[in-house]
Amino acid sequence: MPPPQAGYPIITLLTDFGLEDGTVGVIKGVILGLAPHARLVDLSHGIGPQDIRAAAVVLGRAAPFFPEDAIHLVVVDPGVGTERRPMAARLGPHVFVGPDNGAATRLIERAERLAQPTAFFHLDRPERWLPEVSDVFHGRDLFAPVAAHLANGVALEDLGTPFADPVRLALPAPEPFPGGLRGEVETIDHFGNLRSNIRRENCGGRTPAAVRVGDVEIAGLARTFGERPVGELIAFWGSGGELCVAEVNGSAAARLGVSVGAQVEVFLSA
Amino acid sequence: MPPPQAGYPIITLLTDFGLEDGTVGVIKGVILGLAPHARLVDLSHGIGPQDIRAAAVVLGRAAPFFPEDAIHLVVVDPGVGTERRPMAARLGPHVFVGPDNGAATRLIERAERLAQPTAFFHLDRPERWLPEVSDVFHGRDLFAPVAAHLANGVALEDLGTPFADPVRLALPAPEPFPGGLRGEVETIDHFGNLRSNIRRENCGGRTPAAVRVGDVEIAGLARTFGERPVGELIAFWGSGGELCVAEVNGSAAARLGVSVGAQVEVFLSA
Amino acid sequence: MPPPQAGYPIITLLTDFGLEDGTVGVIKGVILGLAPHARLVDLSHGIGPQDIRAAAVVLGRAAPFFPEDAIHLVVVDPGVGTERRPMAARLGPHVFVGPDNGAATRLIERAERLAQPTAFFHLDRPERWLPEVSDVFHGRDLFAPVAAHLANGVALEDLGTPFADPVRLALPAPEPFPGGLRGEVETIDHFGNLRSNIRRENCGGRTPAAVRVGDVEIAGLARTFGERPVGELIAFWGSGGELCVAEVNGSAAARLGVSVGAQVEVFLSA
Repeated sequence: MPPPQAGYPIITLLTDFGLEDGTVGVIKGVILGLAPHARLVDLSHGIGPQDIRAAAVVLGRAAPFFPEDAIHLVVVDPGVGTERRPMAARLGPHVFVGPDNGAATRLIERAERLAQPTAFFHLDRPERWLPEVSDVFHGRDLFAPVAAHLANGVALEDLGTPFADPVRLALPAPEPFPGGLRGEVETIDHFGNLRSNIRRENCGGRTPAAVRVGDVEIAGLARTFGERPVGELIAFWGSGGELCVAEVNGSAAARLGVSVGAQVEVFLSA
Repeated sequence: MPPPQAGYPIITLLTDFGLEDGTVGVIKGVILGLAPHARLVDLSHGIGPQDIRAAAVVLGRAAPFFPEDAIHLVVVDPGVGTERRPMAARLGPHVFVGPDNGAATRLIERAERLAQPTAFFHLDRPERWLPEVSDVFHGRDLFAPVAAHLANGVALEDLGTPFADPVRLALPAPEPFPGGLRGEVETIDHFGNLRSNIRRENCGGRTPAAVRVGDVEIAGLARTFGERPVGELIAFWGSGGELCVAEVNGSAAARLGVSVGAQVEVFLSA
Repeated sequence: MPPPQAGYPIITLLTDFGLEDGTVGVIKGVILGLAPHARLVDLSHGIGPQDIRAAAVVLGRAAPFFPEDAIHLVVVDPGVGTERRPMAARLGPHVFVGPDNGAATRLIERAERLAQPTAFFHLDRPERWLPEVSDVFHGRDLFAPVAAHLANGVALEDLGTPFADPVRLALPAPEPFPGGLRGEVETIDHFGNLRSNIRRENCGGRTPAAVRVGDVEIAGLARTFGERPVGELIAFWGSGGELCVAEVNGSAAARLGVSVGAQVEVFLSA
């Protein structure tokens, strides 16, 4: 298993730490002290507190657009300091660092779907961490140093012990009913657009005739926002191939009063 | 027309995508995959949804403080996927990439005022984009790759077809009345300070004797915040040469209950 | 006094400017124009408006985790344009740039406690600033250029005139009472966890038997979050060695209705 790129390493950061109190800055300081050449890219620090599921979804959407061997540091860690395993993993072209709590689920599934190699390592080498390790901030004391070492070309094998049973979230899949599929709102973006867990490939070549969410039914699919009048509710294929619902220049989430997990039904025609 | 700096390229990012859901991170991943040496600088991702006018104002204020040939990627794009043109442009020392929807207005006006060259290119070369282009996320699929190519020294001419009629917003200018000027609140900053569209050069050498906004009139100008007591409303010349109103250590916007577009009048003495 | 690292300079940024209006981007543009190789790291731009005390606390917590010679640019500056001194300082391994208003207090105290050298310079060389200096935005016009010069290896001595009496905040220290210590909530993090100003070393080897904050008393200390049930209030040693109170997977600040400055009492057993 080759080490991640030694020449021009990217480390992305995905946490629920927010941006107000300097916590993320501290993690970056630790990384740059060990790996001065690392390129740091924020994915988000606005994951809801302890929302591992949201982290898994955001990571699954974003990581494939990064260069191969980018190191994805994910710290949404309600189990910090407990027996949950600290983990680094090779997931196809991706490198993951963070608690083994399911945040890597989508990348694991993706690698398996594409028949790419995966390998999981329990980070159990304290000599690779900061000298003092707090029980409540492994992002700084354990995961940041490990990400930096990976950026410096240290092999995964030199950072921990292999294991085979990473935690996986049971992320809900859409279910068929006569004439359609029933899924749910998976994420809501900054605009209030609803992204469902129903994907184009789930529809088996049939065309969405209508989408029902909240107490409305939307006929047909739009191609994009600007082809419909402001204020209209539209359904469309999102940029990740997922069925979405939006209000043109507005917030579908606010309009419909729905949140993550709300039911979405699509009616398919042949 | 020389290509943007090949050696040490800066790409700024200005969007209405927010920071919560990883969207901006994805754009950065695409850029760094194509232009690993690019320096990415966030201008703001907190532009109000679809608020092209705010993007034009923020870009106009910020871009002149960046090095020449910085590439300014602006994605506030309610018309994504419609017939609005994707654009790259040379605007004096600045390079702009984004939808042709008016967000470049202030930089176009500035280049023309300073008699600097401008050139506009319709981005119509799909071979310069990601292989698959979503109808709803050109920031990722089209504009990010183009910005990366520019950072790599690709010439504007090689990315699109010249055109001459970019969209311009009709940004309101202050209007004279006997004894003064009538303008409006152009932006409100993080502190709640009101920045008007009345600029020092609009005053023709005369001195502001009073400023009226909301239902208050403020006599004279302060030089800076700290010379007046906490809680006092002051008018002053802002850091961009614009007439501003603030509450010392407070929020003028909250105090006066005004928002962008509110009328501002200045009374001038000889 | 050696100049800060010339080879691979880090500049951190800590302000109360927020991220919406491009202000921070402008500061970065100015820095990169003068010091293209600088690594810019955001500590926070979410310091409360004019809250110098919060800036001092965040800086004191974060700076020690950055490489030596990192340059810490701190612009929380209600006195901009008044007689308050612009300052650059060497504080042990740290370099500070910003108004002399107390934001450096914790780093000054730390350097003195560790018997490290300190030196303070009044930034009084306009030739080192932008050509035009606004009375209301020294972050852009004065401090950003100075930070860039430091990143380029310019010596502190070449940027200003030494002085010996920097402003220090009187940050409250915990006070003993029979059987314990009385302190206060120093910061509240993104999760609503309360961090007090009572530190492990204040306890003189004795063990916290109970912690009182708001109208609750918490018996004993937890080691970390995950060992207690969701919703339980716990007290624990925070990642900086400070006594903290949290609700497991919740917000102690919301639950207890307390804010910064609220009294915290710890009862100690031998």
